[in-house]
Amino acid sequence: MQAVEVITRKRDGGELTAEEIRWFIQGCVSGEVADYQAAAWLMAVYLQGMSQGETVELTRAMAESGNILDLGDLASRAVDKHSTGGVGDKISLVVVPVAAAAGVIVPKMSGRGLGMSGGTLDKLESIPGFRVDLSDAEILEQIRRIGLVITGQTPSLAPADGKLYALRDVTATVDSLPLIVSSILSKKIAGGAPAIVLDVKAGRGAFMTNEGEAEQLARALVDIGTRCDRRVIARVSNMDQPLGQAVGNALEIREAVEMLHGNGAADLREVVLSLAGEMILAAGLAVDLPEAQAKARQMLESGAAFQKFRAMIAAQGGDVTVVDDLSRLPTAPIQEIVTAPMDGYVASLDAGTVGRALVALGAGRRKKGDTIDHRVGVVFHRKIGASVHVGEALFTLHLADRQQEADARYEILGAYRFSEQPPLVPPILGRRITAGA
Amino acid sequence: MQAVEVITRKRDGGELTAEEIRWFIQGCVSGEVADYQAAAWLMAVYLQGMSQGETVELTRAMAESGNILDLGDLASRAVDKHSTGGVGDKISLVVVPVAAAAGVIVPKMSGRGLGMSGGTLDKLESIPGFRVDLSDAEILEQIRRIGLVITGQTPSLAPADGKLYALRDVTATVDSLPLIVSSILSKKIAGGAPAIVLDVKAGRGAFMTNEGEAEQLARALVDIGTRCDRRVIARVSNMDQPLGQAVGNALEIREAVEMLHGNGAADLREVVLSLAGEMILAAGLAVDLPEAQAKARQMLESGAAFQKFRAMIAAQGGDVTVVDDLSRLPTAPIQEIVTAPMDGYVASLDAGTVGRALVALGAGRRKKGDTIDHRVGVVFHRKIGASVHVGEALFTLHLADRQQEADARYEILGAYRFSEQPPLVPPILGRRITAGA
Repeated sequence: MQAVEVITRKRDGGELTAEEIRWFIQGCVSGEVADYQAAAWLMAVYLQGMSQGETVELTRAMAESGNILDLGDLASRAVDKHSTGGVGDKISLVVVPVAAAAGVIVPKMSGRGLGMSGGTLDKLESIPGFRVDLSDAEILEQIRRIGLVITGQTPSLAPADGKLYALRDVTATVDSLPLIVSSILSKKIAGGAPAIVLDVKAGRGAFMTNEGEAEQLARALVDIGTRCDRRVIARVSNMDQPLGQAVGNALEIREAVEMLHGNGAADLREVVLSLAGEMILAAGLAVDLPEAQAKARQMLESGAAFQKFRAMIAAQGGDVTVVDDLSRLPTAPIQEIVTAPMDGYVASLDAGTVGRALVALGAGRRKKGDTIDHRVGVVFHRKIGASVHVGEALFTLHLADRQQEADARYEILGAYRFSEQPPLVPPILGRRITAGA
Repeated sequence: MQAVEVITRKRDGGELTAEEIRWFIQGCVSGEVADYQAAAWLMAVYLQGMSQGETVELTRAMAESGNILDLGDLASRAVDKHSTGGVGDKISLVVVPVAAAAGVIVPKMSGRGLGMSGGTLDKLESIPGFRVDLSDAEILEQIRRIGLVITGQTPSLAPADGKLYALRDVTATVDSLPLIVSSILSKKIAGGAPAIVLDVKAGRGAFMTNEGEAEQLARALVDIGTRCDRRVIARVSNMDQPLGQAVGNALEIREAVEMLHGNGAADLREVVLSLAGEMILAAGLAVDLPEAQAKARQMLESGAAFQKFRAMIAAQGGDVTVVDDLSRLPTAPIQEIVTAPMDGYVASLDAGTVGRALVALGAGRRKKGDTIDHRVGVVFHRKIGASVHVGEALFTLHLADRQQEADARYEILGAYRFSEQPPLVPPILGRRITAGA
């Protein structure tokens, strides 16, 4: 087989065979297919698309390009979770311990922040000493002992995805449904869990800005995942405004820990209970979703979820005194409250604008490899639907220095729109998408 | 500017600005744009196309990616020539000396054979000692002294084309009109001649198999070249059957030298006189095409064209005794005459099949860098329209060893179709395409 033939067929809108896809993907990893050939093929896929059958084969080929984690007898209760990413999305930090406290085995591999989306690994690294580079063996040992892990993608799992993702990022081929679906699912399949719960974000602070597109992605993920012999459910959730109150790495750890103590924002709590419920149900630890969500609530309120989080931090080398005393988290030297410029209601709060302002502050990355400042960020006191009066606190900026203040104040205030009448508050949860339904 | 932005705009079907194209092409040469980014962009151009304005800017940017040969006071009489390539196309070997004998300055850079198309440089290297790696300074010195040169593309001219062509070859992006046009013209523009005569081949042994497509390519070359301030004329010529009698490197040198002595096949002579006439006219050395063609005929018949060819061979280090005594050319050890299997007429003789059979014999290359055997090839005694009788010679195979015989006989005989009635013989010359007409 020759790379040029495979590229030509896709270029001309043809359907690739399973053998062609498998050969090409293995070639990308082995080097037999050169980077520039992979890049031309990615652009052909972007512009010509892929059938569902091709996407299944691509997903399988990428999952099988490296090891598939063997969870052994833990597999029956193992559930993985993935979010398509958003602004202030600290869900994994809460939902993974909640599900684990209820008996779910969660071998979760997360990513780093890029652009307006934050990354779970970056947030966890706010805790001194916390390791996100566990080996396959360490992951297996830890889930056997305490039931949960949140770490980086190990290089032995789905190496083809790592290679292709890096190329997509620099060749304008990120935003393609078959490439997105196969990238997400191949890593989850390689992670070994037979069930996968997906949080697909829709809105101004998400990759899919529109709910219809997010539902289409969710449907594709569920359909392709099912055809790859995984049990997959997806929930669409709103990302028009930041989730919860905090955006910024250490600030989000603080908010997550407070939520694990049973306190915090209603929107965050609603998504946490929904997704934790799905994970508990998928693991067979409840008969239906209401029972699963009740268990999740109990794990939050009993402190069991917090204890799982604490155990995970300790197991991965993190300083647990920080978790026990949140004042020990890295803290920005300047906190500046910004107040409402008018009386009325918050009509909208653009999560995309907030995400981009946070990148400018140093809380996120413009490009891979940029260093980030874990201390900086923003805490929102008023979100969509809240009534405001001139002079009341809208948000608090957490800044590294005074020079950041004017731009940050201007940009984040600019993310707000106010109205005289109370606006409709968008529901935080959207459609639930399951196999065949 | 960022490569991803330029790729994105073309991916989405947008029109690139002159600045974007220039930046991207310079980036390809400097390394600021990575090969995989160039490859993704090439595929986007392949699938989304380019406007005429974009193609002009791309051509200019590629031409200006290196030096542009400064012909000084010779420029007014300088004319370049290019063929899109075919089977048995030894036109340059004849037409360049004919035009030079009439006073045209011809600084011609040629290529090597690839796939079914032969290459002028390979043919010339049948002559021991002949150099095709002249420097810019050597080219200028030689045309000043004797008026003609046929050498390889120098690395300092249009380096962007060299880089992009190598990528196109391995990423299934060769067959794209704007990429073909800009590749051909950028090299010709860098070669410094203000006038360019193009021989666009159409038929089974050409890149463009159909005459309409060839006319479209010819029209694009003339229009884009004109907008790049060159005087360009194109002639479409037929390549359904091999041109002339010989296919194979040393065999084509022999046929070219015989033509330079005024002897040889009518189809070859017709194309030679047509193109040499165009070059003489373009150089301002005749008032109209009939006068220019009469001059060309005179150069052939007087021996002046042969003397120019001989002078070029000598100037570039070739052994002129070979030109004076063609029996000294490299000769295949086996010559095998193949005879007609039936009575009737030659209805067709598929130049594509012949070209591929010649690659199998070692006369051409499957891929760049393959070595070739200058001795092997085929000489046709009967072409389209000829009457044949069983047992009469159809063609002579020139083989390196007996093992080649069965396959070569089978394949080249398979290129023939016979008929009981005399077929229509396609005219060798097609449309003449000039600026605005």
